[in-house]
Amino acid sequence: MDTTTLKVLVERAEKSKIGQVDFNNLSFGNVFTDHMLVCDYRNGVWETPKVMPYQPISLEPSAKIFHYGQSIFEGMKAYKDADGATWLFRPLENQKRLNISAHRMAIPELPEEYFMEGLKALLRTDEQWIPTSEGSSLYIRPFMLASGTGFHASPANEFKFIIACAPSGSYFSGKVKVLIEEKYSRSANGGVGYAKAGGNYAGQFYPTQLANEKGYQQVIWTDDNNHEYIEEAGAMNIFIRINDTLITGPTSDRILDGITRKSILEIAKDEGIPVEVRKITVSEVVEASKNGTLKEMFGAGTAAVVSPISSFGYRDADYDLPELENSYASRLKKRITDIQYNKAEDKFGWRYKV
Amino acid sequence: MDTTTLKVLVERAEKSKIGQVDFNNLSFGNVFTDHMLVCDYRNGVWETPKVMPYQPISLEPSAKIFHYGQSIFEGMKAYKDADGATWLFRPLENQKRLNISAHRMAIPELPEEYFMEGLKALLRTDEQWIPTSEGSSLYIRPFMLASGTGFHASPANEFKFIIACAPSGSYFSGKVKVLIEEKYSRSANGGVGYAKAGGNYAGQFYPTQLANEKGYQQVIWTDDNNHEYIEEAGAMNIFIRINDTLITGPTSDRILDGITRKSILEIAKDEGIPVEVRKITVSEVVEASKNGTLKEMFGAGTAAVVSPISSFGYRDADYDLPELENSYASRLKKRITDIQYNKAEDKFGWRYKV
Ligand SMILES: Cc1ncc(COP(=O)(O)O)c(C=O)c1O
Ligand SMILES: Cc1ncc(COP(=O)(O)O)c(C=O)c1O
Repeated sequence: MDTTTLKVLVERAEKSKIGQVDFNNLSFGNVFTDHMLVCDYRNGVWETPKVMPYQPISLEPSAKIFHYGQSIFEGMKAYKDADGATWLFRPLENQKRLNISAHRMAIPELPEEYFMEGLKALLRTDEQWIPTSEGSSLYIRPFMLASGTGFHASPANEFKFIIACAPSGSYFSGKVKVLIEEKYSRSANGGVGYAKAGGNYAGQFYPTQLANEKGYQQVIWTDDNNHEYIEEAGAMNIFIRINDTLITGPTSDRILDGITRKSILEIAKDEGIPVEVRKITVSEVVEASKNGTLKEMFGAGTAAVVSPISSFGYRDADYDLPELENSYASRLKKRITDIQYNKAEDKFGWRYKV
Repeated sequence: MDTTTLKVLVERAEKSKIGQVDFNNLSFGNVFTDHMLVCDYRNGVWETPKVMPYQPISLEPSAKIFHYGQSIFEGMKAYKDADGATWLFRPLENQKRLNISAHRMAIPELPEEYFMEGLKALLRTDEQWIPTSEGSSLYIRPFMLASGTGFHASPANEFKFIIACAPSGSYFSGKVKVLIEEKYSRSANGGVGYAKAGGNYAGQFYPTQLANEKGYQQVIWTDDNNHEYIEEAGAMNIFIRINDTLITGPTSDRILDGITRKSILEIAKDEGIPVEVRKITVSEVVEASKNGTLKEMFGAGTAAVVSPISSFGYRDADYDLPELENSYASRLKKRITDIQYNKAEDKFGWRYKV
């Protein structure tokens, strides 16, 4: 059988806004490019994706996204190398995970071709928006929402798949203080924590605000049962180094299967770092901090890349992490970003040229 | 200090759609009235609410509702009595719960006056949309969504509060078969289950679809820990009658504090029915069904009122409930709806005239 080649439609913006943007002072995710990709699901099929001018979305007041939170998203980045070529990092992993999330949230899956061809058409149209300054990139936000209507708690019959992009600087500035959470939880066993479902994130806002008020930037989520195990750091997977061993928890239905996490695991093995994927208890981390064997903690995710944690709070005490010369965090961050920006060999085959 | 009287703005629709609606064949939540109430939160304040023609909502692609599920809702009904007067049922309970949900979801709370005056102005404008046929009512959907923008997982700084209404018939037709769920969960300890947060509902769609495929209309949610306790029936609270005792679980951070539930509890006490509010195990329900002491199960909620359950599935077996002459479900449903429709005395002071 022949593969039909999908023809993405392109309607260009009349005027570019790019002249208004200060590319040397980019914050994260606040400025948007000239175009977006839109693909509608109607009558049981995904229609032809279309690149169009970035513009407001109009929805019925009874659209199910507004009432039942039927929405999912992804987060990716496009990088420019020194020769001006555009690169993505493991984009098919995002495409697959989008469909894993879709499945759990009763949203129709999007064919790979629609995702990849739509994304490439958008990136080609907005190519000049990909920043080149150190540490910056084009943050890409694919998302799906229920546009179908009705005040009935059941899946919608119409959806929108959209990709919007924001030239962005770094997510965090400097090191991060985190609080190990013992009251609030991010996700349930048998719940939707492993999906990038919108509602998972709004549920974190209030506990994170409480942590912010106490001087912490992020919450470390623990299991909702006994708050015994360390699970995620805000919207990042978490890594812990005890002595020379790098440890991260296994994924589960409560934990997002992060692409940065699994890439870091492979790079660490390649670097000869001893790696363990196993459950991490809060008490062992506190113990290791007390006896001096806790060397590093860092978060890993597309937006924040590798984010070293400078201290953690637990039950009214703060535990500082040592400042290391040649930390795993800095080595691993350099290896992964060198691949992403096409500054080094990519023995894993992760880089994807647009 | 004086109470400022809020003046709700009203912009009437040029033409009514009411002639197109068949009021004798109303489904639930699919037809919408001519107007809606809109109130915007900007620069730290809720602006003046406005009744305006029912119309699409336009939002930026980066509005946080689309990405992080920052949204909440309520569900109420307006009833017409034989004299044509309009009634609400305990509306201040919905107003308070909206703010409880808002607080948990990091959404600014809405002053009582904005809610009540906005709601009344809308109902007066769309008064002729309140159906009068037996069992039908005007379903009212207040909701709040994050309209503020940015690809950063943090609370929005702009929100919309909207009320839309749908003349509706009954939610379920006939009795309901339910499945006791042991794999998927609705909410976590320390999570947002007690809030009417959008994401809680989309998370139920897929498990409910799986149950539908097996011939059940609804899922009975159990705790996410050991699936040992019975918690809710879809978007209803659940009641169980063993011998002559009516039992419902206590509310918790996983269970919505339903207004129908607490009204039913008061009416049952008033009826002299022995009532227990305590945790209910799955095994005692199965046991009671086997030994013939399980007399009734029913769901309770604004949309479905009191919904008798005809049988429940558990681990590949189905357990039928007996058909009773003078069931608690029918007695309690009659008492509550007689109050709602102003057909009987309201000794509790629940009815609210618009
Ligand atoms: C909850 C959560 N954990 C972890 C991650 C990291 O995943 P990835 O490395 O694929 O970006 C993300 C964000 O993307 C997330 O939302
Ligand atoms: C999860 C859940 N439980 C119970 C209820 C019943 O609450 P109420 O009686 O206030 O409508 C609802 C719906 O409103 C609900 O969404």
